Amino acid sequence: MLSALGCPKSRGGCPDQRQPEEWEMEKSVQGPPGQPGGSRLVGGSYPQKNAEILSSQYGINLFLAGLLLMFAWAVHAVGIRKQDLLSYLITIMLIQLLWMLWYICRSYTQRRLIQEKDTHAGARWLKCGITLFAVITLILDSFKIGYFIGFSNCLSATEGIFPVTHAVHTLLQVYFLWCHAKDIIQSFKTLERFGVIHSVFTNLLLWTNGVLTESKHQLNEHKERLITLDDQVPECNCTTTLCSIFSQGMYYLYPFNIEYHILASTMLYVLWKNIGRKVEHHHQHKILFKFHGITVGMIFGLIVLISTIAVVVVYLIQMGRSKIKSELALTMFYLYGISVLTLMCATGIVALLIYRLEERSMDNSKNPARKLDADLLVGTASGSWPLSWGSILAIICAQSHPKYTWYNLPYSILVIIEKYIQNLFIIESILREEEKVNDNIKTLRIGTVSSGSTLSLTPSYKEIYTGAADMDNGKFPYMFDGNIYMRERSGGDGFDEVRSQASSPVTHSTSNFSLYSRNSVNNKRRILKNIAAFLFLCNLSLWIPPAFGCRPEYDNGLEEIVFGFEPWIIVVNLAMPFSIFYRMHSAASLFEVSCKT
Amino acid sequence: MLSALGCPKSRGGCPDQRQPEEWEMEKSVQGPPGQPGGSRLVGGSYPQKNAEILSSQYGINLFLAGLLLMFAWAVHAVGIRKQDLLSYLITIMLIQLLWMLWYICRSYTQRRLIQEKDTHAGARWLKCGITLFAVITLILDSFKIGYFIGFSNCLSATEGIFPVTHAVHTLLQVYFLWCHAKDIIQSFKTLERFGVIHSVFTNLLLWTNGVLTESKHQLNEHKERLITLDDQVPECNCTTTLCSIFSQGMYYLYPFNIEYHILASTMLYVLWKNIGRKVEHHHQHKILFKFHGITVGMIFGLIVLISTIAVVVVYLIQMGRSKIKSELALTMFYLYGISVLTLMCATGIVALLIYRLEERSMDNSKNPARKLDADLLVGTASGSWPLSWGSILAIICAQSHPKYTWYNLPYSILVIIEKYIQNLFIIESILREEEKVNDNIKTLRIGTVSSGSTLSLTPSYKEIYTGAADMDNGKFPYMFDGNIYMRERSGGDGFDEVRSQASSPVTHSTSNFSLYSRNSVNNKRRILKNIAAFLFLCNLSLWIPPAFGCRPEYDNGLEEIVFGFEPWIIVVNLAMPFSIFYRMHSAASLFEVSCKT
Repeated sequence: MLSALGCPKSRGGCPDQRQPEEWEMEKSVQGPPGQPGGSRLVGGSYPQKNAEILSSQYGINLFLAGLLLMFAWAVHAVGIRKQDLLSYLITIMLIQLLWMLWYICRSYTQRRLIQEKDTHAGARWLKCGITLFAVITLILDSFKIGYFIGFSNCLSATEGIFPVTHAVHTLLQVYFLWCHAKDIIQSFKTLERFGVIHSVFTNLLLWTNGVLTESKHQLNEHKERLITLDDQVPECNCTTTLCSIFSQGMYYLYPFNIEYHILASTMLYVLWKNIGRKVEHHHQHKILFKFHGITVGMIFGLIVLISTIAVVVVYLIQMGRSKIKSELALTMFYLYGISVLTLMCATGIVALLIYRLEERSMDNSKNPARKLDADLLVGTASGSWPLSWGSILAIICAQSHPKYTWYNLPYSILVIIEKYIQNLFIIESILREEEKVNDNIKTLRIGTVSSGSTLSLTPSYKEIYTGAADMDNGKFPYMFDGNIYMRERSGGDGFDEVRSQASSPVTHSTSNFSLYSRNSVNNKRRILKNIAAFLFLCNLSLWIPPAFGCRPEYDNGLEEIVFGFEPWIIVVNLAMPFSIFYRMHSAASLFEVSCKT
Repeated sequence: MLSALGCPKSRGGCPDQRQPEEWEMEKSVQGPPGQPGGSRLVGGSYPQKNAEILSSQYGINLFLAGLLLMFAWAVHAVGIRKQDLLSYLITIMLIQLLWMLWYICRSYTQRRLIQEKDTHAGARWLKCGITLFAVITLILDSFKIGYFIGFSNCLSATEGIFPVTHAVHTLLQVYFLWCHAKDIIQSFKTLERFGVIHSVFTNLLLWTNGVLTESKHQLNEHKERLITLDDQVPECNCTTTLCSIFSQGMYYLYPFNIEYHILASTMLYVLWKNIGRKVEHHHQHKILFKFHGITVGMIFGLIVLISTIAVVVVYLIQMGRSKIKSELALTMFYLYGISVLTLMCATGIVALLIYRLEERSMDNSKNPARKLDADLLVGTASGSWPLSWGSILAIICAQSHPKYTWYNLPYSILVIIEKYIQNLFIIESILREEEKVNDNIKTLRIGTVSSGSTLSLTPSYKEIYTGAADMDNGKFPYMFDGNIYMRERSGGDGFDEVRSQASSPVTHSTSNFSLYSRNSVNNKRRILKNIAAFLFLCNLSLWIPPAFGCRPEYDNGLEEIVFGFEPWIIVVNLAMPFSIFYRMHSAASLFEVSCKT
């Protein structure tokens, strides 16, 4: 459906069909960029690292200026109104729109300029995810437009222009990401760098704006529970009947808007990192999602998902009704959290133990998309941990302890441990999966050299070569992509032979050993697939409570008493967006792991 | 003096004397780490990337727990006293002490285990700098001990134990960094990773503690100017006569303590990144600082330095005396700042233009120390920019503008632009300086292949090889390290020959061209050296005002009116440490650039 958006055929959703050898040839003729005798002339192209620093510093300043404006607005600074902030956001969105239009036109007219693609970037599931979030963001924009029409008498014009611009921006950006997320830009590099980094930080600012708006809303809701207070309604009456629906509905859509912008900025960041990059290898691995083989993981995961929805519904209904009901809801939430997190920790440890039992080397080749994935996991987990440490500290230091607060202690500790273990599992999974052929050739060579064997190597190499050739034709022997069906189709005799020879080049390989090893690997792989699927659904489940306003950090009251209301609000509002994004991002990563294992 | 600290000879200050070839041999026999057939056994060594994630997540949590404790103390949380925070800091310092002792003992008894060195890490000027700051930190500790003795009746024991532990920690850490900062750890990797990352984050926490204590003091001083308020004096009388000297003197020493901890943590971070790394090349470049040839830069820099000290003294004396005197002091400060920053921008642009005129490729090899340098420059500049953006926003939005506030606008804009340009200059300088031989060989090969020449390549290669051999013997032809004396000693005929042949393999190189090019390069190099020396002294100068309490951001009052007192205090206290560290770090980098150019 969406791949028919009309991207120019030569660089659309489908990867380039040429063979790796062709790439290598083309590059060696052009000469590597940045070499003195090559394409670099005096005053001509700019060194890559410098252009990176030049553009990133521009982007950071664009972002900081907006951030300060937002901060000023949030603290009710004198002379700074909402329309100033919105005008700034509209301006940078329009600049991005112009740049994207220019880029799309140029790449349409000069199709031969952008040829290389990063197959790791802009995965299909990522594009589908961003499209889903974009659609919901468009609904949010239409709600905002409706709200503006209702209150148009007392709202400034920017409040109407903003959602319109945002909707156009969203449409064009999604089209841009579908068609160009995999591009490796090799022309007009310095200019493109500015355009892409501008887009990255524009999305980050829109993300911050979303987070801020949502936090303000959450805070007001929380205050409303304490005292009746509502400073959000404009000073005139709504002219249509739908205003309250719009203003209520908006806040259920914000979590998706927030996810949309953060995903867009990560995809654009990868595009930015890829500018001028030399691609070393071109594996084309399609991710095929199959339900078969992960039934156990899926069933348990779905149980967790359904019970989460039930818990959230009960929590939201019970909270704030009476003291006893609130305490019961909190106790229920913590007990549910403790059991889910314990399960997740246990499965994560099992997965790591399985990895320790398997001898496999890591793929250490340079890869911006993968490095960003790992950094985002650790970074967002670190951003969310202060919340848990705050709760732990509050429980230890509090003077009085109602019974339900004690459940908060194991819950907070488990949140930290679970993210710790899960990050280890995901990052190891991301790093393990590829480049098996090369490694085995290397191993064979080293093993043979170190044991000083004088046997002829020709037969072994030939067999490996057959395996490698099979890979290029898309018939992966089963160890390479873990797909057991392909193994059965191709007879499964190619790789085990190679493997046993590789690990002991001077000794004998019996078919018994080979069969045992195949079964064992097969079982391990199935367990890993199930664990990844289970963790995927668990992370999706844990994303729901904070995204839909179920926040025990506000409701249990203990941290507020210890830290004070304002300081604790600051901690929660800084850490919560990271926590929500962490769940979304780890779910996405685990989906990928589950498909690739 | 300090190299005679008693480091074991085989790994002390002096780098290993073996030739690169020996390294390569040793590595190929051992087999690359992490390969399945090599040293990795089931359950044995842990994949490198995982161990990195495992230890870094531990460190982050150690840091976050301390940070929350500090935050709780700063916001006067219920039940959290200063001794809780100090106990935590004492505990983690003791753990680091134990680990360092174990590491030093083990490396002393098993000298053969740690053999490889990263020659880029732990430069001598860095070690000397950290020793200077450590000495001042020890004085600070002794002041704290003296203060504790005076008030021992009403202070908790932890306030005495903390400076004692800190002094021991400082002594051992400086010894550790002198002897082991260059180590590339290859054994007990996972354990060492935990030890080193623990040390990194312990220093970061001590840095945060220093920043917090200093900010609190600055804030109190500022409040004192507004209303008479002093909540810092303990509730009993001092038993000695020196208490007021100690409590006053302490705050002049804090800036050095803060610098000491941040430098220590960066050095330890490089040590951590180097664990298990494979070193690719072993250039030994000693930095020789020579005053000759940078006289102009030094003279102008010293003028700036002296005038800065004068401005700061006048500012601190005049500020707060009367409204007119305060406004005059502010006007003087801004005008001084504008002129210095304009000069710095201009020289930075000249330096960048010179780089654009020179054809040179960048060294893109992996190097943790260099990458960290670049990241720290951009990162700390980004951390300090909110201060300038806040001022700009305040000036634009303020309702009333006293005359002196207008000077703040160009000043703030220039601060942003100056850091922007300076970062570009420093990072390009860091990346340009090495690996010239390899690049020229590559260029020659590409040039020859692309022009389809059939000439015999043997003579050209031979000449390049002679140049390369010269380099290994320490006699760098002048283009390689820019030292004009060496060029004159070695006759200067080696490289220009190679260079002209490399850029035009099929054409003729006349000696006229060679002579002209040599002079031109020589002049450019001298200009760059002077610029680096000038910028070095300017950065040192700009470090002085904020470090010694000359803070127009508080004193001019405009931002406080626009943002409100509390929000603006938060912005300043978050951004100011970055600003101070940026000046210190860029001064250090520019010193290196000036020596190496």
